[in-house]
Amino acid sequence: MSMDLREREMTLGDRVMARLDALARYSAEDGALTRLYLTPAHRDAAQAVMGWMQEAGLDTTLDAAGSVVGRLPGGEGPRLILGSHIDTVVNGGRYDGPLGVIVAIEALAELQRRGVALPFPVDVLAFGDEEGVRFPVTLTGSRALAGTLGPDWLAARDAEGISLGDALTAFGCDPAGLAGLARDPAEVGAYVEVHIEQGPVLEATDRPVGIVSGIAGATRATIVVTGMAGHAGTVPMALRRDALAGAAEMVLAVEELAQETDDLVATVGQIEVRPGAVNVIAGTARFTIDVRSTDDAVRNAAMEALQHRFEAIATRRGLSLAIDVGYRQPAATCAPQLRQALAAAVAAEGVEPIELPSGAGHDGLAMIALCPIAMLFVRCRGGISHHPAEAITPADADMATRVLIQFLEAYAGSSPAGPAKA
Amino acid sequence: MSMDLREREMTLGDRVMARLDALARYSAEDGALTRLYLTPAHRDAAQAVMGWMQEAGLDTTLDAAGSVVGRLPGGEGPRLILGSHIDTVVNGGRYDGPLGVIVAIEALAELQRRGVALPFPVDVLAFGDEEGVRFPVTLTGSRALAGTLGPDWLAARDAEGISLGDALTAFGCDPAGLAGLARDPAEVGAYVEVHIEQGPVLEATDRPVGIVSGIAGATRATIVVTGMAGHAGTVPMALRRDALAGAAEMVLAVEELAQETDDLVATVGQIEVRPGAVNVIAGTARFTIDVRSTDDAVRNAAMEALQHRFEAIATRRGLSLAIDVGYRQPAATCAPQLRQALAAAVAAEGVEPIELPSGAGHDGLAMIALCPIAMLFVRCRGGISHHPAEAITPADADMATRVLIQFLEAYAGSSPAGPAKA
Repeated sequence: MSMDLREREMTLGDRVMARLDALARYSAEDGALTRLYLTPAHRDAAQAVMGWMQEAGLDTTLDAAGSVVGRLPGGEGPRLILGSHIDTVVNGGRYDGPLGVIVAIEALAELQRRGVALPFPVDVLAFGDEEGVRFPVTLTGSRALAGTLGPDWLAARDAEGISLGDALTAFGCDPAGLAGLARDPAEVGAYVEVHIEQGPVLEATDRPVGIVSGIAGATRATIVVTGMAGHAGTVPMALRRDALAGAAEMVLAVEELAQETDDLVATVGQIEVRPGAVNVIAGTARFTIDVRSTDDAVRNAAMEALQHRFEAIATRRGLSLAIDVGYRQPAATCAPQLRQALAAAVAAEGVEPIELPSGAGHDGLAMIALCPIAMLFVRCRGGISHHPAEAITPADADMATRVLIQFLEAYAGSSPAGPAKA
Repeated sequence: MSMDLREREMTLGDRVMARLDALARYSAEDGALTRLYLTPAHRDAAQAVMGWMQEAGLDTTLDAAGSVVGRLPGGEGPRLILGSHIDTVVNGGRYDGPLGVIVAIEALAELQRRGVALPFPVDVLAFGDEEGVRFPVTLTGSRALAGTLGPDWLAARDAEGISLGDALTAFGCDPAGLAGLARDPAEVGAYVEVHIEQGPVLEATDRPVGIVSGIAGATRATIVVTGMAGHAGTVPMALRRDALAGAAEMVLAVEELAQETDDLVATVGQIEVRPGAVNVIAGTARFTIDVRSTDDAVRNAAMEALQHRFEAIATRRGLSLAIDVGYRQPAATCAPQLRQALAAAVAAEGVEPIELPSGAGHDGLAMIALCPIAMLFVRCRGGISHHPAEAITPADADMATRVLIQFLEAYAGSSPAGPAKA
């Protein structure tokens, strides 16, 4: 497909924004963007991405995990993997994920237009399971490349009882091919992802982009507090063992600990009580905690402190307590050399580079088992993500693409297969 | 129907317990007692109660509100109404309600066996809508007698969209007859109800029965706290407006106020948060409060104090707040003369009389608009009600029936139509 004059006049940022808008049309709902892993909307989005990759000169395949793989022909030595994900949360935004896929495609397309042939091999990956909304597993696409999928992965079921294996088959993939996706670490040089910040730091420091120091580790747990249900009118306050009142104290303990600890955020996002009637004292309360830090020691100490605080509250109130840790993800530090290279690329575009941590998880959490990782964050309005109000500017999208191009050209210079070695 | 020798050997308490066990079989579920207003299980229970009333010599009708009315033939002057309700909560107990109906029937049956003809007219009422579980209205049977049904009462719909009017028709009642159920206050002397305590006071003070001083008034409200949803990993603690953390502070404020205020209980029995995901800061939290006191001034002051505390919490946290008061029920004081008469009857059975408030609502809340009310509470195990573990002893059931007989005989002496006047 040839470009007309109008397309030539567009900035890289305009092109990125136009494609992100086009991709946002693929949704399970009208008027909202919901694109869960292995759904028809995901399939349509993957098809669109393959078309854009082909326009940029990439050879495309849909791999056995439902990821779109765009391979730049040519190059020697360890492969550079660029990309991000194209699945969304329920009623999400159009930038979280797709930005990194489209920026990578547009950067390669621009280099092709300039006649620059990269001396190293490049893949662009559009992963499909970064949000982990549909199945009780997550990062299926990137874990497949890293070879770290668990043994029962295909048996995971969504809320309707459909297994991940069956969903892959329905998507047009062969689940038996998953194991074969694992890449040889010797053949992969790095994974570099562009992503919206999903936080307020770049906006507060007036930067279009920033370099990620590392991805926070996370612990998630479910806490069940059990007291004694009773009639709201007849049980005197002194005789109550109110599970919700105990849980409320614990919610505040979570908040307080995070407020008083550096490099820690902690959240109670779900709470439910039983029997759950206006005139019945709660017999049980169930809530979740989500605790994150880029420092695993800080996170683990926080979990221990919370356990002690919860136990003290439960004991004082005559409640029983069960803490079920369901998810533990170590932090992933971005590679210093890649961070320096990204900082140089940012500086080359006239922006003072700053580093910031990622509180959100990303495919890099899986890819770090395969290769060094790096991330470039792009400023987003109000720090909002996972919400229709998610927004970036064309100028910032342009800056992100130009920084990636700078990075790729410098990477060529430092690549074993590149000019520096030639 | 004649009684055989075996029945004659049973105590009054044994008879009461046997009938309560028999009535417990009428349920919408196997293995649990759920008997909602105007359901087939309610119809079967009403039929059984009519049979027992007829055995006790009462003339029976099913009134237009679905209440069973058992009328003792004879007597002059203002009518004494005895009774309680035969509907239950979901998965409830067998004593809350049915006890008062069966004790009244058995007391009249025993007086008949003794050849005592009461000089005043008596009705035994088995109301069907005391728990208010099925429809968004409650006390339909007793309000009908008091003439205090609202204009849109028949239009109230259950969770399946069935109107109260249609449910009455399906039950075999004529909704058009509801208005005609209103009794003339001049023709009703008093309403006296026996009921399980549903609280721990009688057990703690080692009494089989106690006299109710009054029924607590209640205010119920729904509170919606709105903050800002956000990513649990990326929004720093200092920038959060977490609706659940604010709601948790309010839950503790409710508990604290009730603990520090005499004659007040307050409960948060329901809470829900949105979006309600483990990794998303709560944008909104919705919870209910249920505030009760036998002193309306105490209750109203508590509601004002809570509003101020909630507003202070919301303001400090940058949250918005909406308080929707959905239900306000004034307290109902039991008539001093009737309380004295019940106390005399309790003392005549060798028990030191004590008074206690009722934190739970009862049909007396409606009946007080028609006539003076009184209640006799019966000890229940652990203060538990609205639960399958609800339990009383045959000895306490026996005591309650004997106290009611003592009361009826003394009431005859004090009745305008009774011996005192003859």
